[in-house]
Parts: sequence; structure tokens; C-alpha cells
Amino acid sequence: MKNVTGARCTLCGKNFPAEPETTVCPECGGILDIEYDYDYIKKQLAEKPLASREERTMWRYMEFLPVIGIGKRPRLRVGCSPLYKAEALGKILGIRDLWIKDDGQNPTASLKDRASAMAVVKAEEAGKDTIACSSTGNAASSLAGNAAAAGLHACIFVPARAPKGKVAQLMMFGAKVFLVDGSYEDTFRISAEAIDRWGWYNRNAAINPYLMEGKKTVSLEIAEQLGFQMPDYVAVSVGDGCTIGGVYKGFKDLFCAGLIPKIPRIISVQASGCCPINTAAAAGTMDWVPQEENTLADSIAVGVPRNPVKALRAIHDSHGITVNVSDDEILAAMRLLGASSGVFAEPAGAAATAGVKKAVETGLIEKNSSVVTIVTGNGLKDTANAIRSAGEPVHIRPEMDDLEKYL
Amino acid sequence: MKNVTGARCTLCGKNFPAEPETTVCPECGGILDIEYDYDYIKKQLAEKPLASREERTMWRYMEFLPVIGIGKRPRLRVGCSPLYKAEALGKILGIRDLWIKDDGQNPTASLKDRASAMAVVKAEEAGKDTIACSSTGNAASSLAGNAAAAGLHACIFVPARAPKGKVAQLMMFGAKVFLVDGSYEDTFRISAEAIDRWGWYNRNAAINPYLMEGKKTVSLEIAEQLGFQMPDYVAVSVGDGCTIGGVYKGFKDLFCAGLIPKIPRIISVQASGCCPINTAAAAGTMDWVPQEENTLADSIAVGVPRNPVKALRAIHDSHGITVNVSDDEILAAMRLLGASSGVFAEPAGAAATAGVKKAVETGLIEKNSSVVTIVTGNGLKDTANAIRSAGEPVHIRPEMDDLEKYL
Repeated sequence: MKNVTGARCTLCGKNFPAEPETTVCPECGGILDIEYDYDYIKKQLAEKPLASREERTMWRYMEFLPVIGIGKRPRLRVGCSPLYKAEALGKILGIRDLWIKDDGQNPTASLKDRASAMAVVKAEEAGKDTIACSSTGNAASSLAGNAAAAGLHACIFVPARAPKGKVAQLMMFGAKVFLVDGSYEDTFRISAEAIDRWGWYNRNAAINPYLMEGKKTVSLEIAEQLGFQMPDYVAVSVGDGCTIGGVYKGFKDLFCAGLIPKIPRIISVQASGCCPINTAAAAGTMDWVPQEENTLADSIAVGVPRNPVKALRAIHDSHGITVNVSDDEILAAMRLLGASSGVFAEPAGAAATAGVKKAVETGLIEKNSSVVTIVTGNGLKDTANAIRSAGEPVHIRPEMDDLEKYL
Repeated sequence: MKNVTGARCTLCGKNFPAEPETTVCPECGGILDIEYDYDYIKKQLAEKPLASREERTMWRYMEFLPVIGIGKRPRLRVGCSPLYKAEALGKILGIRDLWIKDDGQNPTASLKDRASAMAVVKAEEAGKDTIACSSTGNAASSLAGNAAAAGLHACIFVPARAPKGKVAQLMMFGAKVFLVDGSYEDTFRISAEAIDRWGWYNRNAAINPYLMEGKKTVSLEIAEQLGFQMPDYVAVSVGDGCTIGGVYKGFKDLFCAGLIPKIPRIISVQASGCCPINTAAAAGTMDWVPQEENTLADSIAVGVPRNPVKALRAIHDSHGITVNVSDDEILAAMRLLGASSGVFAEPAGAAATAGVKKAVETGLIEKNSSVVTIVTGNGLKDTANAIRSAGEPVHIRPEMDDLEKYL
């Protein structure tokens, strides 16, 4: 990989070669960062400008990605999700310029497809035919779908509380699924032990540094879709810390390659019932404290985040802000996104928008701002909460006089 | 509309001007067909070849569409869904060349978005701010989503049996929803009366001839994605008859404009428990007979199809074939699509693939064929049936010795 210079530990700062199965720092156990040769990237971009490219997937940005090629196996169409100018919602929230990046439009309906598509390519590079992960749901179904398309096996560990829709989706993709009677923490631990024992390719996002490189493509797309004119803020919901880390990394890479004039300030949104990262960030410390997982937004209900270092760095280095939102605020944001913009988000996907709303209301961000809010997953993933948010429809007999009562 | 010559009745053959609110034949009540000036279309295509266009939505094919423009309101990204070469599934089914057109990747997760996006544009042309329809679900949620994005109101009538996920989705889009205690037929009738009474724009697919013009874009895309080399067959599931009519119309328009050398033979797939169109087609008659609605594939459970004329014509004129599939065959096809190709389909969306499988097994189509199978809706729309198809995952305690029992 001519564009990659190595993998640097986020804790001890040591450099290592970036191999397909590189996971954490062999010396201190810290999470690694993939590093690039930005001069090389600049040259590549000058030779073949982005605007000239036909590719309409995340693989459009090859010089920013830690792969040699993407092989010949079939692949799902991941990335290049729509960025909607949300004028109606912007007016409701009182923001000058608001955009919605709808990553629920990915093949398995979440942003996690970007990481899983990367995992499939790296697993092939490593010569593995089985990929495994633990997940609250979206990483799992995206791994299952992307692995199935490429003809690889997937072994997946899911906490027992995961919504049935998510579990059904990954079962349909032919994955071997283990529903773990325990917390997300228990689920993560048993998956790590199993990966070690059976030699599978590891798709646990905090462990495998390449996954964040897949996730960062969401930022590359936002930048290109905005003509490389950066918004003031980008809002994203935060669980494990990997997605916010990826969002920041994408902007950082673009900045270092000279494509954007500034890195947007990141709005880190967590659920009030489970916000260890935001609590630490607000206190200005890296010493986060585990929390209970009390939120209906299951995709960000992570009391023991696996990637606090990159998450806290993303908030700090982007001069970001933190907002915690209640479950009621999340449900309200689901209705807002749907009714104003035709975007159906799962609770964790709507949380970022709930955070933007609250940040404006509390004066944390200015009304004259430009903001991109990322919808990380589709509402069809969790219809129980959609029903909870939407209420019940009107029941009528098929008679006009019955209908007239309601109109 | 310079490209449109008028609207011709499918029953009496009379021609009428194509107005925004044109519905059925004012003389005999027959369903209308939008007709084009193919010489004009050819000129437009010569001036601005498809390959040169930036637009990556269904509006890429403007000269084939019955609109003046698409206005300035915000729109969802509809169309340009992926066409996957399905080598693994092709091998399983014993077909030389198989492709999957995954229209579950549309914004509200079904092919119906193509018709609803068209309805929104035509409603604006007609100066209406409310659009209404009856639907088993997908037309409804797509109308709700597309109307919400454009800032229009939606009034929707849904039979009480519709899956909760579909209802939740359209509620989230802020639509006014009426759950009708009755059959699809009852639901359709009450919606028609209400549209008449309150003067809403009519998005009932068989009544409004423009909707099929939106749906046909799926065929325009298939053709372009295959470099205008046509497959032998295109398989699609059939309920009301509008989708198969649109699929045929797309290919017919391309053929008449000189873009494709032949029209593929259409494989019309219905559920064995509800197959009035296939029954009539197989008997070589236009006199279809209403049937019970006995299938779990709710999106095609239509015992009284509203568009049998266009459906039967599509089968006849394309030298098509008919296949009926059982619910078990549909559930098996859902597993096949997911595990072999990473595509998660709702039952009606997988029915076409079940039909292809059966058509090969029974010798209706040759193993040396090339086939496109259309997935009309995403499996997340109906997780109850996905769970029924996929079975239950393995439950384990978070301990290695428990896991070892299963590996």
C-alpha cells in the first residue's frame, strides 16, 4: 500500500507496519491509527481528480483507503449515500443551513456497512474465510450481508437484548449467530476469546484499526457532496466511539491532503442514560467511567466503550461539543426527521438530530450555523420503537360515515 | 411535455390529452397508457447521451418521463438501485447469467418509491397539496416518505392486516393513516370515495397512469446497467399488476426508441394462494376471476387486481411465462437471496427469485438463460416473516464451554 505509512499506537505512539491482521499495539495494547503519506495522496488526486471518477461507492476514494485493491469477489453497493439539504427541518430547528447524511440508505441499512465492506477486503488479504464480531446489531448485520455477498462466512455474537428485526436480518444472510445472555461487555469478551481460539478474522471495530478507515468514507462523501466547503458542525451519535472516530479521521485526512480548509467541529451525541464518553469529554479527562445502559437507542447503548481514546480525541481535536439526549428527545427527533424530510431513522440514527435540536435550544451552537447531521441507521431496523414514537393509526370501518368522523 | 403525445385507453383505444390529473378513460373507464414521441426521444438522447449524465436517480431518464420538470422542492434519492451479478445464486439455481436488481435499496425500501416520486411531481403540477392512496403497505410508506420530503400532505388507507413495521414507517413520515377493518378491496374503495370527496391527488396506481411511468424506470436502469444487452428473462412478483406493467412499459419504450434490440420475456410470479392474473394468463384469457388472499407475501396478496389489463398484456406481449410459488418456496428464496448474495428481501420481493428457481426446476426456462430477478422490497419491512424464514439463533451463556458445544 503505497499510500499507507504504517500503524501508530494511540497510547504509546510507537509505529508498526500495517499488515492485514494488524489489531492492537503489540507493546502496550493501545488501539492503532492507520497513517498515510499525504504527499502521495495529493499526487494521486492531481492525476485522477475525484470529479472524473465513475465509481459510486465508498471505493471511490481509493488513495484514502488502506487496501491494495478490492479483489474480484462480488460486493454490495456501500457508500455514496444521499446528503439532503434539509430546509424544512433547518427552519424547525432554527439553523441557517442543515443537511442530513442518510447512511440508513446503505445495503444493510446502516453506516456500519462501510466498516464491514472494509473488513471483507482485509479478511481476503489475510487469507481468511471466516469473519467474526460482537455487536449490538448493525455491525453484525452489515458483516453478515457483506460477507454473504463476497462468499465468506460470518460468526456473530449479539447481546440477547438486540431487537428481533436486526437479528432476523443477520440470520437471513446465513451467518452463524450466537445470542449471548449477558451485557454488551460479556458479548464482546466471548467474541474476542472465540476469535483467538478459532483464528477468524476480527471485525471488532475498536480492535481492528481498518474498520474506522471504512467508516471515515462518510466524511469523505460529505465533503465532496458539499463541494469541499465545510459546515461549522457535524453531528453524530456515539456508542463504542468508533463511528465518531471515523468521522473525525475522514475530515482529518482530507485536511492533511489539502482538500478542505478546516475540520468541522464534531457534535458528540449520547443518550442521557448511557454517556460515558460525553461525561469524560465534558470533564476534560480521558478517564471515562463505565455506566449503565439505560436507553432505548440500542445501537449506542454502550456502557463500556471500546474506543474512548479515538472518540475523546475526535471531540477534543475538532473543538467539538457534547450533548446528551433523553429517550423522549430521541423519539421526538425520529418524528421530526420523518415528517419534515422523509428520512426514517432508528433511535440511535435520530439521536444526532436530537442533539442538534438541543444544542440550538440551549445556545451551545449558534442559529447562524451550518450543520450536517448523520443518520447512522434506518428506522426499519427497530420498528418497536418507531411504533412507540409514532403512536397508533386511526382504525375505521370501510364506510364514509366512519371516515367523516376523523376528517 | 414535448415527449408525450397523449394518453390512450387500454380498453377502447381512444386518445386523450395527458393532463396532470388524468386518471381513467372518461368514456369507458379503462386504464390509460401514456404514449411518447419516440423520434423526439431519439433526438434528445443523441444530443445528450445517457452516459454523459451526472444525475444518479430515476430522473436520469427525463425524455422517457411524462413531466415538464421536477420542480424545486426537496426530493428523496429514488432509483439507480444496484444491479448485482449474482454468480453464487446463479450456480445454485443452475442459470448461466443471473442478476439481482435490488430495489429494496430505495429510500423507503421498495420499488414503489419510483411511483410515489412521480406522484409528488404530478401533484405539484396539478396544484394539489395532499396526495392519497390505498395500499398494502409499500405504496403507502413510499408516498408518505416522498410527500414528506417535498412538504406535501399524505392521506393513506391501509388494510388492517398490514405488517406493523410498514405502518410504523408511514406514521413516522407524518402521514394521516387510516387502518381499514376490511380487505384490500374495501380499502381501495373507501380511498377512492375519499379522494373524490376531498379533491386530493390520486396515487392509486391502477387509476393514475403516471405512476407506472415512474415504475418503468427500473427497466430503464436494468438496460443501462447491462449496457443495453438484454437478458432473456426478467422476473417480477405480481399483485395489483401495476409493477409488471411498468417493467414491461420501460422495456417497450426503450425498444421503440431503438435503444435495445429486444424486449426480455417477463416471468410473472404470483403466490399460489393468490394468483388471479397468472391464472388468467395461463388460460389465455383476459377474464380473470377474483381469488382469496392466502399468502404471507402481503405486498402481492391482491385477490382483486386493479390493473389486470396491463399485467396480462405485459405477459402476452413479451411472450412471458407465469409461475406460482408457495409460501414455503418464498421463505426459502428469502434465505437463498440473503445467504448467497447479501440481499435481504421481503416475501413479495423474494417471490420473483422463488419463481425463477421453480421455472428452472420445472424446465419452463432453460439453464443456459440469462435472467434478471427484481427484488421489489426490503426484508426489514416484514421481520416477522424473516424470523419465520430464518429460524432462531443459538442462545449461549457468555462462557467458552457453552460456545464449544456449538462449534
